[in-house]
Amino acid sequence: MLKVLKFGGTSVGTLERIQNVAEIIKKIRDEGHDIIAVVSAMSGETNKLIEYAEYYSKTPKADEVDMLLSSGERVTSALLSIALNEQGYKTTSMSGREAGIVTDNAHMKARIESIDTANMKKAIDDGKIIIVAGFQGVTMDTNRVSTLGRGGSDLTAVAIAGAIEADVCEIYTDVDGIYTTDPRIEPKAKKLTQISYDEMLELASAGAKVLQNRSVEMAKKLNVNLVSRSSFTPEVEGTLITKEENIMEKPVVSGIALDKNQVRVGMYGVTDRPGIASTIFTALADAKINVDMIVQTVGVDGKTDLDFTIPTTDWEICKEVMETFKGEVGNIDYNDKICKVSIVGVGMKSHTGVASKAFTALANENINIRIISTSEIKISVIIEEKYAELAVRVLHDAYNLDK
Amino acid sequence: MLKVLKFGGTSVGTLERIQNVAEIIKKIRDEGHDIIAVVSAMSGETNKLIEYAEYYSKTPKADEVDMLLSSGERVTSALLSIALNEQGYKTTSMSGREAGIVTDNAHMKARIESIDTANMKKAIDDGKIIIVAGFQGVTMDTNRVSTLGRGGSDLTAVAIAGAIEADVCEIYTDVDGIYTTDPRIEPKAKKLTQISYDEMLELASAGAKVLQNRSVEMAKKLNVNLVSRSSFTPEVEGTLITKEENIMEKPVVSGIALDKNQVRVGMYGVTDRPGIASTIFTALADAKINVDMIVQTVGVDGKTDLDFTIPTTDWEICKEVMETFKGEVGNIDYNDKICKVSIVGVGMKSHTGVASKAFTALANENINIRIISTSEIKISVIIEEKYAELAVRVLHDAYNLDK
Repeated sequence: MLKVLKFGGTSVGTLERIQNVAEIIKKIRDEGHDIIAVVSAMSGETNKLIEYAEYYSKTPKADEVDMLLSSGERVTSALLSIALNEQGYKTTSMSGREAGIVTDNAHMKARIESIDTANMKKAIDDGKIIIVAGFQGVTMDTNRVSTLGRGGSDLTAVAIAGAIEADVCEIYTDVDGIYTTDPRIEPKAKKLTQISYDEMLELASAGAKVLQNRSVEMAKKLNVNLVSRSSFTPEVEGTLITKEENIMEKPVVSGIALDKNQVRVGMYGVTDRPGIASTIFTALADAKINVDMIVQTVGVDGKTDLDFTIPTTDWEICKEVMETFKGEVGNIDYNDKICKVSIVGVGMKSHTGVASKAFTALANENINIRIISTSEIKISVIIEEKYAELAVRVLHDAYNLDK
Repeated sequence: MLKVLKFGGTSVGTLERIQNVAEIIKKIRDEGHDIIAVVSAMSGETNKLIEYAEYYSKTPKADEVDMLLSSGERVTSALLSIALNEQGYKTTSMSGREAGIVTDNAHMKARIESIDTANMKKAIDDGKIIIVAGFQGVTMDTNRVSTLGRGGSDLTAVAIAGAIEADVCEIYTDVDGIYTTDPRIEPKAKKLTQISYDEMLELASAGAKVLQNRSVEMAKKLNVNLVSRSSFTPEVEGTLITKEENIMEKPVVSGIALDKNQVRVGMYGVTDRPGIASTIFTALADAKINVDMIVQTVGVDGKTDLDFTIPTTDWEICKEVMETFKGEVGNIDYNDKICKVSIVGVGMKSHTGVASKAFTALANENINIRIISTSEIKISVIIEEKYAELAVRVLHDAYNLDK
């Protein structure tokens, strides 16, 4: 098999840990697989370099920041290559450029446009283990080094796996897979063997941050089999994230996710003229605020109430936008003592009664639901924050996720 | 004017010092010059990376060491570019690859084969200050990053200055120029305004280590006007190293150099057969030992004595080579309590009596000369080490170098 393996900053955080990664790769190599390993910078390294840049400028030139930051991954790739080579394995490091990764021209947040796999294919034909410096490519127009932004090394791995048609793309972190819910909240949480891209995306957007959505979306688009597993317990099988058709047994509910970083915005007594909701939400979208759940209640006297949630990080900007609607709104309040609990599962599509089971379970504990929203494979509820962990455990139990 | 400026590891050793370098560049730019600055890694950075590599291997792969080490200069070039840009100057960093530097395939000690200046010329036409990551290029055959070995950033600067026909190449270190002798030994030493390439080469090989010989040789070959000056006192004019024809006033003696890292090897009672000296010195050359000064004294009974000097660093290897001649030699002894004092000056060519003045001056202080060797522009003497500093001061005085 051709395997793309990705090791994040924590997995390569020290010289000892890089040695540990070399051991993992050796074992897989000894099983007869071809390997392209994608590595991040040693943890702390990127932040150190950013601090260096900020010593000179609050807004350093993006192309120079890329020149600066891309060095971190180059260091890790060379070190890992040296460590494996010392043990008798044929290896080669590759910068993003050498790996053929071409991006658009948006420095610091570049998107991969294409990957020329010729250089990698040749190295594999030569029997080499390839160690690619993640997070980087070169711009299509200026041919300068670019970086892919947050989660960039995951993207590098997935994009390479897609371009070179690897059999699997294993993402190594400090967590050994995707769980039915956060084990710190519910110790009975179980690791999932498989999960579909869409479920993973819903879980991630609902607060389960093992994998970046950008990478899962790309894996889905390129039909890459992703595996989430741990470099600290490599003997443990991880969770396969794949397309729904590949999943044999489709559970009704796969997992419960919790997101505490939500603020509920209540707009009361909004003048009920045509297009008012559209105007408000367009203004929020223009300010790049991620509005999540929306409830509109038409009241009396030609007034209406609007309730919606936003991420806590967008709270300040949201307040500024809300100021512009002061004249048309009776009252605006904010509540950050809420949380969002989400139930995710592809099986919901073909099963009824999933939602009512959740409502019953929460009602039994006297937990009030403030807002509900549903998609084909997700039910989200907004509840008081103090019930967050209790709600997760109750729902985990209601769907028998510990079985 | 088009100026190439080179800043070494000490000059860019901290964030504050990089800011100081930015100030130097600003000032030169404001005078209306085009600038290509070549930078080293921040001091300590390269050694740190080498230690990292040695954690995994005593003999790390050379191409991976290059991938590793080349990151240090990239960081400095990006930071300096950011610092200058923040102050309103148009800048661009360039890796060795972007600067068009192509080397042979000898990783870790690559030689520059060619420089494609198109990218640099375009940036200068665009009004940009260029900051080149020194010490690196890409190999001609495999197109991988290579490094140039010790003094590599100086070489980068000189080679670029030659290729792009810069008016001057200024090498900034922590020393503000070339002195008539080491001011720590003779406080009356004077900074030279000008010196020829050949004098500089003789001074350097005689122990005055401000500039690497490799860079001076390249400057001579490419006819690059080199200036040695300090980034800590940039207001002080440095020393111009140029071709002899450019030097107006040719002093008889330009400087006195001292080299204490010498061992005198005495081979007594060597069987005097034809070719014996050749056999011995070929064996030493094969072991890459730099034999400096040689004296042969034909003795009685078909025996001969050989005296020569080697650098202290080659002492151990020399002993091994000498072992192989045991049968043909009566006795071998080593003396490291000696030193070499050299008198350098292009004016010697046309002046007589230079050597005799030295011999008289040393004799007046009862300093015995053990070996003498001369070139067209240099007289070197081996004396007892305890007289080293005294000899330097006496000779400095004899040639009126403080005037």
